[in-house]
Amino acid sequence: MSRSAGLKKPARWADAVPAREAQFEIKRRALVREAARAFGRRGFHNTSLEEIAEALGVTKPALYRYVRTKHEILFEAKTIAFDAGARARDMAFSGTEDPLERLRLYIVHYIELVTSELGSYAVLAEPVTSLPPEYADPIRARMREADRALRGMVQAAMDAGTLAAGDPKLVVAFFMGAINHIARWYMPDGPLTGREIGETFAHFVLNGIRAPLPRG
Amino acid sequence: MSRSAGLKKPARWADAVPAREAQFEIKRRALVREAARAFGRRGFHNTSLEEIAEALGVTKPALYRYVRTKHEILFEAKTIAFDAGARARDMAFSGTEDPLERLRLYIVHYIELVTSELGSYAVLAEPVTSLPPEYADPIRARMREADRALRGMVQAAMDAGTLAAGDPKLVVAFFMGAINHIARWYMPDGPLTGREIGETFAHFVLNGIRAPLPRG
Repeated sequence: MSRSAGLKKPARWADAVPAREAQFEIKRRALVREAARAFGRRGFHNTSLEEIAEALGVTKPALYRYVRTKHEILFEAKTIAFDAGARARDMAFSGTEDPLERLRLYIVHYIELVTSELGSYAVLAEPVTSLPPEYADPIRARMREADRALRGMVQAAMDAGTLAAGDPKLVVAFFMGAINHIARWYMPDGPLTGREIGETFAHFVLNGIRAPLPRG
Repeated sequence: MSRSAGLKKPARWADAVPAREAQFEIKRRALVREAARAFGRRGFHNTSLEEIAEALGVTKPALYRYVRTKHEILFEAKTIAFDAGARARDMAFSGTEDPLERLRLYIVHYIELVTSELGSYAVLAEPVTSLPPEYADPIRARMREADRALRGMVQAAMDAGTLAAGDPKLVVAFFMGAINHIARWYMPDGPLTGREIGETFAHFVLNGIRAPLPRG
């Protein structure tokens, strides 16, 4: 309790605790990213935690300090993607008042964030049914939350008259399908940056959904 | 060799062989479709062949007459989808000479065919890495074939000047991503028919990729 004169640098010692936790979290995210990449190569179900450790050049006990199961790695990778989505929405809302421009900013930022934070992330295409309920349920909740937010953004643009009237659910299913599919083909050392893919896809999506549907 | 007078109805007997084979194939496809639906509910890796037999109301030996492994079912479901794609391309080519209109027809027909032939088909989202090489290799070959054909169709529209110049690879990745993603949410008893989804998606895609990219 009392600050002993014999205890040197008490401030630095106290600071070291959160710093160490932050360090752990940074290392953990780096490991999840590398593991996600390793899973992508041979498939989630064909790759063991042993093989992940080997691909990462660490021992299994060292890997165990950060993640306990394959499911935890997939859960973390999906969490990184949902966090990127939430951040992209924040950036879109703080970037402009225009509902259609918000959609554009969301698409550009989301693709840029998810490709830069996860790198090669084919494992994200792994369906949520591959996770046990304790991981699947929170992921499903985040899927619903993201869907709701995006449908709201589409509805706002329809209400403002900058987007042709239609079914926001179908519009979101359309463009998020195209965007989620990037996980299957994106390569960090490929010819296109995440930003370039984001700009092109935002262009395709906005032009696509802007024109009124012909009456069948 | 010689037609014995004692062998009654030789013509009908001979005809019965292909008819029986056709019957077997019809039953097999129906079974694959039902099994694909059952896998979709709980996930390919969480569902055993025993559970598939149970969901289909058949005994395991009866199921075994048609398929030997889960991999065979996934392979067949993917084959049905690729066959639908090839048929949709044929329909597009015989339907019109205009390259852009061909793309539109392809999208409408493919979505209509795949939703009607497979019904609820979330299992199709299962990555090819879930299959052993003897199944994965021919599927990858068909993926490459389909990609090549679609890129050719996009390139033809670009050459004709009805589609803005760009990277056909990225254009195909965009729209096939949106289309393949339908597997994750389509329900045969949902509010939209495959035809309606096809028409709307074709509209989104064509308007999306038609406008020239702004110079960055």
